[in-house]
Amino acid sequence: MDEPSIALLPIGWVESPLTHRDSAPKQGDEGAPEAWIALRPELVEGLAGIEPGDEVIVLTWLDRARRDVLRVHPRGDLARPEEGVFNTRSPDRPNPIGLHVVTILAIDGHRVQVRDLEALHGTPVLDLKPVLGPPGQR
Amino acid sequence: MDEPSIALLPIGWVESPLTHRDSAPKQGDEGAPEAWIALRPELVEGLAGIEPGDEVIVLTWLDRARRDVLRVHPRGDLARPEEGVFNTRSPDRPNPIGLHVVTILAIDGHRVQVRDLEALHGTPVLDLKPVLGPPGQR
Repeated sequence: MDEPSIALLPIGWVESPLTHRDSAPKQGDEGAPEAWIALRPELVEGLAGIEPGDEVIVLTWLDRARRDVLRVHPRGDLARPEEGVFNTRSPDRPNPIGLHVVTILAIDGHRVQVRDLEALHGTPVLDLKPVLGPPGQR
Repeated sequence: MDEPSIALLPIGWVESPLTHRDSAPKQGDEGAPEAWIALRPELVEGLAGIEPGDEVIVLTWLDRARRDVLRVHPRGDLARPEEGVFNTRSPDRPNPIGLHVVTILAIDGHRVQVRDLEALHGTPVLDLKPVLGPPGQR
């Protein structure tokens, strides 16, 4: 199909001690260090209402991933049979968008400190969303 | 910053009886009809391992949303004070990526039937990911 591609602009970037994929945990709750999200200053108004302690979903662009992979060993474990990438959280996938559930630690102007973000330093951030409560509390 | 934009290619498209934003529920578990995701046939291998009954996260590109909005009334309810878009699930946001938790009903070749998807007919699909179990069961 001749679909034009979709253009994303990062809303910010990750600042983290993690700099290499091999040293990053597979998921944020498996030992990720504290990190910052530096939002574009002109977007700071979009943070209104977010407070320390909130759980937030961070979408990132995993810019060091491969996009031509359709099957992987889950968690890179060669002992596990290959599965389709859409049945894994592998960063390698046609659109390498990372999904991270983090806890807000602090907000300092357009910079947001978070716990449990396993993305590498310099990773573009695409979106922030609240974790949804049950219907009736949204 | 002079960051080049990021190019996404849809992995597929939503087929749904929902055609207008005004008639769509705010969230998939608030009355969305059954829908299909028609994957690009060349990506079908990426589905390997997904089965009916699985809970899957669908990322979509909300192509009818506004990208120049930073504050909204949550759920479009004018009685609620405006908040930053990053503290809401509004489709209107700088990168209008939709996040939907759906249940797989059936898989028919490169087409996947799902429950609880409130995206409109024709919405581009960007990614599918499994809902993560607890550490140790991933």
